[in-house]
Amino acid sequence: MEHNIVVRNNVKILGKGTQPILFAPGFGCDQTVWKQVVPAFEEHYQVILFDYVGLGNSDISAYNPERYSTLNGYAQDILDVCSYLQLKDVIFVGHSVSSIIGLLASLYQPTLFSNLIMIGPSPCYLNDPPEYFGGFEKEDLHSLIEMMEKNYIGWANIFASTVVNNADRPDVTKELEDRFCSTDPIIAKQFAMAAFFSDNREDLRKGVVPTLILQCSEDIIAPTEVGQYVHEHLPKSEFQVMNATGHCPHMSHPEETVQLIKQYLNEVHLNNNHLGPV
Amino acid sequence: MEHNIVVRNNVKILGKGTQPILFAPGFGCDQTVWKQVVPAFEEHYQVILFDYVGLGNSDISAYNPERYSTLNGYAQDILDVCSYLQLKDVIFVGHSVSSIIGLLASLYQPTLFSNLIMIGPSPCYLNDPPEYFGGFEKEDLHSLIEMMEKNYIGWANIFASTVVNNADRPDVTKELEDRFCSTDPIIAKQFAMAAFFSDNREDLRKGVVPTLILQCSEDIIAPTEVGQYVHEHLPKSEFQVMNATGHCPHMSHPEETVQLIKQYLNEVHLNNNHLGPV
Repeated sequence: MEHNIVVRNNVKILGKGTQPILFAPGFGCDQTVWKQVVPAFEEHYQVILFDYVGLGNSDISAYNPERYSTLNGYAQDILDVCSYLQLKDVIFVGHSVSSIIGLLASLYQPTLFSNLIMIGPSPCYLNDPPEYFGGFEKEDLHSLIEMMEKNYIGWANIFASTVVNNADRPDVTKELEDRFCSTDPIIAKQFAMAAFFSDNREDLRKGVVPTLILQCSEDIIAPTEVGQYVHEHLPKSEFQVMNATGHCPHMSHPEETVQLIKQYLNEVHLNNNHLGPV
Repeated sequence: MEHNIVVRNNVKILGKGTQPILFAPGFGCDQTVWKQVVPAFEEHYQVILFDYVGLGNSDISAYNPERYSTLNGYAQDILDVCSYLQLKDVIFVGHSVSSIIGLLASLYQPTLFSNLIMIGPSPCYLNDPPEYFGGFEKEDLHSLIEMMEKNYIGWANIFASTVVNNADRPDVTKELEDRFCSTDPIIAKQFAMAAFFSDNREDLRKGVVPTLILQCSEDIIAPTEVGQYVHEHLPKSEFQVMNATGHCPHMSHPEETVQLIKQYLNEVHLNNNHLGPV
């Protein structure tokens, strides 16, 4: 491999365990969004953190607009990291669009992953009446992209509020806004287009990796109907509605997020030990 | 490379900076000995931790008695880790025998390292009268090895007390003893023989990497005369006597250890910026 993937994707390796758990940040974010969640997994897992190329402290010079024009390019980042570190039996935790990026990675290499944890997944943000409700009209998303071009800081402020949707948690909104603002606006816009205009509904039914879907309450970006749709179309998936509100429970409600992930992994572990492979 | 070096050497990558600082544990120890030192470097460096093959949570199946019969085999572990992660401009921090292991690694690949920090180095533990005082007679070291064979737990207890040499710090002695006791006795004995019977005095003068020598007070394993000998024969070395007593200042006196390393690195940094390369 030509690139040093550890540098390219700003890979960090933590924890005392052997099974890898890889945390993939959502749109416009870097690995710092996991800081309240990671410590709970350090005792029993090998924790892998990274930034997608173009985000956080990744090597921006490795950004390739063509590669990252679709979610497949981001999925390749996941596979590159796993390949470079020769990971096996990976638990993948993805937030928002990274849920689908993880699904795409698992379609390329199904045996690489033991489980997927999807936090607020949406296979398609656009409404497709009458059969599908994604939550957004095409005009909404075009306005969003247009605002990113014309007033990036203003967009970051408004979009962070919409995503977090916890009026009483300005700290979380501020943190997300800061993530957006520290991202190159051109790269953020291309990521937004790859994320918001992709339709991965057909990919759901191809999934083979046992998956936990964590669905927030009052989530504007990935409403409960969308999470239910994922559950209904994704084989071997479990659906869990959270008390957490908004779209970033790993930032706003880390305790519940940790507890539900651990509970799921413990159940998986028990099933594997006592009843054979799930 | 055949092996996954990250797994083989239980590599961890921490920190927010870009310049790598790699911490190499001393004889019979693993990366946990650095736990009180590492946090001070996470803000400005990329911190690399690892265990030598055969120690800690390394892959014991990769242990090869022939390779690890000399310190060169351990030096190769350092080079493998740096190569696998494609590190450059590495600050190497080695405790005790790892000081010399780092020196050997730097003789193979001088341009890989920006600086070496040696904590309690000794190029030769054996006395070689009249010109060299190492602190030990051949019979002392043979007795030590014999005790490792006959009563490993008893040896671990006594040797840990000798090494730490801080009667008022039973916690540190216990921690070191636990490190020894969690190591395979066969591997520990082979490591001890490679460490205690090697004579690297001739290698000192070949050194080309700017080096800080941290010399403890009241150090039984590496007495002050030995540290001074290293300083006199190693080009570009600075000699710093610590207030810390014993042979494990990174465990017993982490604040002073951190402070002196940072002070040295800051001076190096200033010299590089204002006076050209050192």
